[in-house]
Amino acid sequence: MTQHVERAFFGSFFHAPEYGGFEFLKDALIEVDACGVIGRVVAKDDPEQARLMAAYRECGVLTELGEGRFGLPGFVDIHVHAPQWPQAALALDEPLYLWLEQRTFPLEAKFADLDFARAVYVDLVEQLLARGSTTAVYLGSAHLASSIELASICAERGQRALVGKTVMDDPSANPEYYRDASAAQAVEDTRTLIREVEAIGRASWQGVWPVVTPRFIPSCTDEVLRGLGDLAAETGAYVQTHCNEGQWEHDVVLERFGKTDPYALRDFGLVGPRSIMAHCPYLTVEEGEMFAEAGAVVAHCPMANAYFSSAVAPVARFRAQGIRMGLGTDISGGYSPSMYENIRQAVVASRLLETGVDAQRAPDERGGLGGDVRVSLAQAFWLATAGGAEALGLPVGVFEPGRAFDMQVVDVKRRDADLTGFGVFDAPEDRLARILYLATPDNVRKVYVQGRLVRDKDAE
Amino acid sequence: MTQHVERAFFGSFFHAPEYGGFEFLKDALIEVDACGVIGRVVAKDDPEQARLMAAYRECGVLTELGEGRFGLPGFVDIHVHAPQWPQAALALDEPLYLWLEQRTFPLEAKFADLDFARAVYVDLVEQLLARGSTTAVYLGSAHLASSIELASICAERGQRALVGKTVMDDPSANPEYYRDASAAQAVEDTRTLIREVEAIGRASWQGVWPVVTPRFIPSCTDEVLRGLGDLAAETGAYVQTHCNEGQWEHDVVLERFGKTDPYALRDFGLVGPRSIMAHCPYLTVEEGEMFAEAGAVVAHCPMANAYFSSAVAPVARFRAQGIRMGLGTDISGGYSPSMYENIRQAVVASRLLETGVDAQRAPDERGGLGGDVRVSLAQAFWLATAGGAEALGLPVGVFEPGRAFDMQVVDVKRRDADLTGFGVFDAPEDRLARILYLATPDNVRKVYVQGRLVRDKDAE
Repeated sequence: MTQHVERAFFGSFFHAPEYGGFEFLKDALIEVDACGVIGRVVAKDDPEQARLMAAYRECGVLTELGEGRFGLPGFVDIHVHAPQWPQAALALDEPLYLWLEQRTFPLEAKFADLDFARAVYVDLVEQLLARGSTTAVYLGSAHLASSIELASICAERGQRALVGKTVMDDPSANPEYYRDASAAQAVEDTRTLIREVEAIGRASWQGVWPVVTPRFIPSCTDEVLRGLGDLAAETGAYVQTHCNEGQWEHDVVLERFGKTDPYALRDFGLVGPRSIMAHCPYLTVEEGEMFAEAGAVVAHCPMANAYFSSAVAPVARFRAQGIRMGLGTDISGGYSPSMYENIRQAVVASRLLETGVDAQRAPDERGGLGGDVRVSLAQAFWLATAGGAEALGLPVGVFEPGRAFDMQVVDVKRRDADLTGFGVFDAPEDRLARILYLATPDNVRKVYVQGRLVRDKDAE
Repeated sequence: MTQHVERAFFGSFFHAPEYGGFEFLKDALIEVDACGVIGRVVAKDDPEQARLMAAYRECGVLTELGEGRFGLPGFVDIHVHAPQWPQAALALDEPLYLWLEQRTFPLEAKFADLDFARAVYVDLVEQLLARGSTTAVYLGSAHLASSIELASICAERGQRALVGKTVMDDPSANPEYYRDASAAQAVEDTRTLIREVEAIGRASWQGVWPVVTPRFIPSCTDEVLRGLGDLAAETGAYVQTHCNEGQWEHDVVLERFGKTDPYALRDFGLVGPRSIMAHCPYLTVEEGEMFAEAGAVVAHCPMANAYFSSAVAPVARFRAQGIRMGLGTDISGGYSPSMYENIRQAVVASRLLETGVDAQRAPDERGGLGGDVRVSLAQAFWLATAGGAEALGLPVGVFEPGRAFDMQVVDVKRRDADLTGFGVFDAPEDRLARILYLATPDNVRKVYVQGRLVRDKDAE
């Protein structure tokens, strides 16, 4: 085996191979091949480890994480509106329609300008990488060219990415200055996007994929939804859209089709095993069963849901129903580019879903679901790593043979963020909790994608 | 006037003098006297400004914030369990009693060791200052010596602080290894604390004050509660305790006294204009009126409440009732030492209080309060600054004459946190929103307390 090893990493690693648990790989050696794929994880108690380390050290391919540093899988952020990055944190007190009309649409329209698009997208990709997000699923603007540009930027900066051009063709729902020229043009542009982004992906070492991306039903004509569904079926491309995000959307779709959002999307051919459905707090049990059967993915966006959904998505029920799930920042419905902050919010929001919110009512009249609805920190960590990987069908998110080596190195002892806890509670679950709850961007020192170092703050 | 000016600061500043609004002082000159108190704020359009700036520059007392930097008032964190700092982020899935028994009490007991206490407290004070918290209200451990040590550390590191020794004397409620020896001893120790900390405060340039600190009713005997109430009346010292934090506490107090927590505290003499009541989500309208009349303060701890209160505190109602309020991190019931993160959570939690959480119910059956219960970002900013100042009766939190000059300087253009938004939405409210929602500790570059520079990351 060892002849294929390109690099080897020695240190201690946290990952979450199963939902709800995590593993601490203390003093492990991870072998990575020339393609950036993990060949073997050699445990501390493996009698071979010492010999291998000596050999790798001698030939100069051994990287030691070092004292006080831990390797975590890179995060998989499965819902990011790339052109909304300049709007992150803004106008979150507005209702969705005003937020879209006064902010989002005028902003996204600017991405007709490729220079502007490039400046924003480079910064966004760099910021996500700096926070350990090694894979991202992006919705671009409605422009073909800047969406292809986004894919190129991800390829060149070393982020694994799925990139769509947002489709919004309905003249009655979208402003004239910012919409697709026609349903036919939108489908044609998406076809071009698929071809171009596939080419970018083939030329990349980490993988970049196209995504069929209707914004959401209220932005789209029947014709374009049908056209995109057919295109997805024909090409096997990923699909991403918003589903069951809020009461308004829920009601509008029901009124228009006499059926709810998930069924309408399904009937247009947009719900399948490559489909990412963002938000979904309104998903019923029956709709969830349909998703589970179809293999569709729910992108949980706990931060954005607090602002625009008027509810908390029931993650525990979705998981119990067997729905595939990952976590998304939803920039800029959620303000933060950090998956760390979204992991925290996934936990916090689930506590309020459990209990309800108004203490003037008796506990059982507070509107909480009670029971086992909490998202534990380990579960949220899984959603952000292995869950996202499973959702996308990509071999990442866990340190095991056959998966790409995507890693963030967390230094737990930085001047303004010492996560060592003075040695008081030092079990692996405590160390992991400190990292997930307390890490700042500064704690993330190095980021690897597919075995390659794409960000090295130590060297700056 | 100018003969008293010790230093002057030129730049652009955000602050929130009134609840719900904020002001942007663009290109303003702030004069600070030798005691660190603001003498004058000279606006950009004041014809005197140019002459004053020239004079101050010439005599070397002018500090210019610089391009892309903004001054914000230092934060006032009104609820921090100092000895729980090593436990931040840990075991938040546990119920309160287990969390206390297995984690908090064994940890706090370690603060009998002054060397350990000093190491933890120095780090905590530094971390809070690094995040812009220039004033903090601390609960120490049950130990007199380490609590006095905490006050000394605050004095020497330049943080304005209110420090208490936590009282917990009930043998039936607290472990033998960690409790006050007796009610009489606890009151005596608190008396000593008041004397010692007042002396430390008098010798400090920024102010340090003692706090009478019963942990909460369930930890304390009637005797000690009465003794501490009498001591507070006698000395006029601040009081801090937990009030109406959770259902368990609420029920235990009602059972023990036949009245609820706020009334029980009042009847022990612990509710007055110098009293800080932490959490309070269970506070009824009637209890709130009593607090408003007494001038008591509610410390809103939105992060901790999600974990331990099973509810969201109704900030809007409290404000409408005229209750004085500030914001607290509640380390470690809340995981984060950052007031920025607590500002964000105050907003997010209020959205769920408005709407409720379970989307499977109709909107009006979701358990939300509806109506005007949102905490806007500007309101949360006020809570973290001017509100906290008002709550403590200290002249800080706003840039106006007569207040101490406590300032954090935020650089909006750091490599891993560019808050400039590419110039797209650039109104003052947008700039402030980006700072409050997106700043990382690294964006906070300098921190001033009472006119003195206590942290300068630029120089490191």
